[in-house]
Amino acid sequence: MPSHAESSHRLRLGVVGLGRAFTLMLPTFLADRRVQLVGACDPRAQAREQFERDFAAPAFETIEALAAHDNVDALYIASPHQFHAEHTRIAATHRKHVLVEKPMALSLNECDRMIADCAQAGVNMIVGHCHSFDTPYLRTRELIGSGEFGAVKMIQALNYTDYLQRPRRPEELSTAEGGGAVFSQAAHQVDVVRLLAGSRAIRVRAAVGNWDPARPTEGAYTATLWFENGAFASITYNGYGYFDSDEWMGWVGEMGKPKNPEAYGKARRLLQQVQSAEEEAQLKAESTYGGKHYIAAAPDNATAFQHFGPIIVSCEGGDLRPMADAVMIYRPDGRDRLRLEPPTVPRSEVIDELYLARFCGVAPLHDGQWARDTLEICLAMLQSSDEQRDITLGVNVATTQSCETLS
Amino acid sequence: MPSHAESSHRLRLGVVGLGRAFTLMLPTFLADRRVQLVGACDPRAQAREQFERDFAAPAFETIEALAAHDNVDALYIASPHQFHAEHTRIAATHRKHVLVEKPMALSLNECDRMIADCAQAGVNMIVGHCHSFDTPYLRTRELIGSGEFGAVKMIQALNYTDYLQRPRRPEELSTAEGGGAVFSQAAHQVDVVRLLAGSRAIRVRAAVGNWDPARPTEGAYTATLWFENGAFASITYNGYGYFDSDEWMGWVGEMGKPKNPEAYGKARRLLQQVQSAEEEAQLKAESTYGGKHYIAAAPDNATAFQHFGPIIVSCEGGDLRPMADAVMIYRPDGRDRLRLEPPTVPRSEVIDELYLARFCGVAPLHDGQWARDTLEICLAMLQSSDEQRDITLGVNVATTQSCETLS
Repeated sequence: MPSHAESSHRLRLGVVGLGRAFTLMLPTFLADRRVQLVGACDPRAQAREQFERDFAAPAFETIEALAAHDNVDALYIASPHQFHAEHTRIAATHRKHVLVEKPMALSLNECDRMIADCAQAGVNMIVGHCHSFDTPYLRTRELIGSGEFGAVKMIQALNYTDYLQRPRRPEELSTAEGGGAVFSQAAHQVDVVRLLAGSRAIRVRAAVGNWDPARPTEGAYTATLWFENGAFASITYNGYGYFDSDEWMGWVGEMGKPKNPEAYGKARRLLQQVQSAEEEAQLKAESTYGGKHYIAAAPDNATAFQHFGPIIVSCEGGDLRPMADAVMIYRPDGRDRLRLEPPTVPRSEVIDELYLARFCGVAPLHDGQWARDTLEICLAMLQSSDEQRDITLGVNVATTQSCETLS
Repeated sequence: MPSHAESSHRLRLGVVGLGRAFTLMLPTFLADRRVQLVGACDPRAQAREQFERDFAAPAFETIEALAAHDNVDALYIASPHQFHAEHTRIAATHRKHVLVEKPMALSLNECDRMIADCAQAGVNMIVGHCHSFDTPYLRTRELIGSGEFGAVKMIQALNYTDYLQRPRRPEELSTAEGGGAVFSQAAHQVDVVRLLAGSRAIRVRAAVGNWDPARPTEGAYTATLWFENGAFASITYNGYGYFDSDEWMGWVGEMGKPKNPEAYGKARRLLQQVQSAEEEAQLKAESTYGGKHYIAAAPDNATAFQHFGPIIVSCEGGDLRPMADAVMIYRPDGRDRLRLEPPTVPRSEVIDELYLARFCGVAPLHDGQWARDTLEICLAMLQSSDEQRDITLGVNVATTQSCETLS
């Protein structure tokens, strides 16, 4: 991607929601000179105060006030999932470009409205960060596109994490409100696999696991996806916090940082000290922006790219395995390790797409339609597990389907 | 298992087929003093001559001559798959106990006949070696049985090998004749997963991959299995010889021996020198017992148990991961590595079952019904992929189903 660091164009970004998603994107906003944070909104006074101190920019209580601000060019919508559609509508009404966090929304109807709202207002919409933005997957996609390996035939993706052991707000543990591993985590894995398959998914069969009564939402799943080009993919996720598949990623964690295997069980131990759902939500809030235990990410300790667990792409003439710092290439006559230069700015791939869309007219890959199709697959996974049958995509998933109707 | 090494009871075994399966079992027969090889049969004169030299025991051209031999107590049926049913019938007719190689047979009808033949003759039938005999899986099963981890909920099994790049006889590359990764390799993986799930499989959904025109049979598959106890399993196999998942097994190969990662592509390079199917079959024959390139396995270089690739068993209260030399145990409060003492005799678990059945009246785990149920799942995998739907086991897989009707 061309560097626009010294360009006169800067994205004047307003942040909607100073929670965990913002906390994870903040290192990017701080390090990427193409971005300027010019405002924010959040219901928490503590978070607003910290934002105003940190950025000498206004922080409002409501999105309406932020969206009405003339200095704002685009809104980064990082509010809880259930507000994405409404907040996108408000942004579009004020002709602000939209970067909205994944999952895009909770129903396909909402997605359709968001796409229409942005189209009507003539603003760009990009959905992310999602791990399919990560450079190792984009490089793997380029390698596939080179034709050297022939057609993609089978993809295996798995990820074993402590997702369900981390502190959560109550709605994050309720599938009907967009919680659980399918909405939060399959949204990444499906997106990555779609990117690598390079073809429209046409069919899904899934089994979901929900086996911790104290956290009654999906903590695990396995699914098979079939693609129009004949490829198929097996994806598996387990967020219950036992085996950690980062062992197979060279002990580099999801955020691209070295992981200490000896920290096994840390999230579970922390959670065991919590007495109630309120206390848990508070624990989460305290460790996010403005909270008293908030620790800003060190700007320079990412030694590799972010990732979403082990993935093997099997093509007719070889296998490709994206790692956090390389793509492993398995050819008929030998193996190669294509080293990837460590990122200077984490998640700069998101800004690449947003910047190029905003200032250069380059159509984004991760647009509303792309993200809608991923949500359709996530909804189909829940439906398939529930109805014990294949779900044909684009046909028998009704557009009114939502997580509420499925759980 | 009790050691019967010094017992006066010895299994007087006759070997039906001195091919690759025998080559792989020979280190066991040589090292396990509970076994005595008292005869063999094979159509290849070279193999018969070597057997007679090596064991000072008769080698016949036909199974009938071997089965009629009074000194033979049990027959190890290691002939090509398509002969298993007929050879079991001959063994039973002569009241010989049967150890038959996997896959048990090519159709459920054949399995049913084999079970009936052995029952009627009052002889034991054990099907193996299969990797579900391997100690790491049996120990994992015991750990599950202890109840410490609660119910099994999800199993992930994958294996990336060079199976389809090794030299083959023509029928091994023909699904209709029992060839391909589903019959040869899923037979292992399904068996291991069934053992660990500890429950009857009730439903299968699969996708198979067959993408090398030069080797037109299944080289890969992915499948989901559902079990009566609510557990589900995702199994994936790729035998096209690129990524090698023994990387995730501490570079211990399937046979329990250290593997050199630098030998990448060895099987493919060897195969590329072959000009015809006849030459390939000859290459295979030459490297098996009696062949001019046959190298007897060194008796003492197995430093670990045999295995069938990475497997993670997720239970309600922890994960278990069988490795070649240990079971990794992931508990709520910490990780353990349960080290397994290296085997003194490879695959002695097979002799354990056969010996205990023959002399102690202990019902074998890997009996005909067990192996029939695994074959049913393999057949259902092919059917599911072909018909693009779930296959309910024990119901809509007709007993006349066979590999011929499916390909």
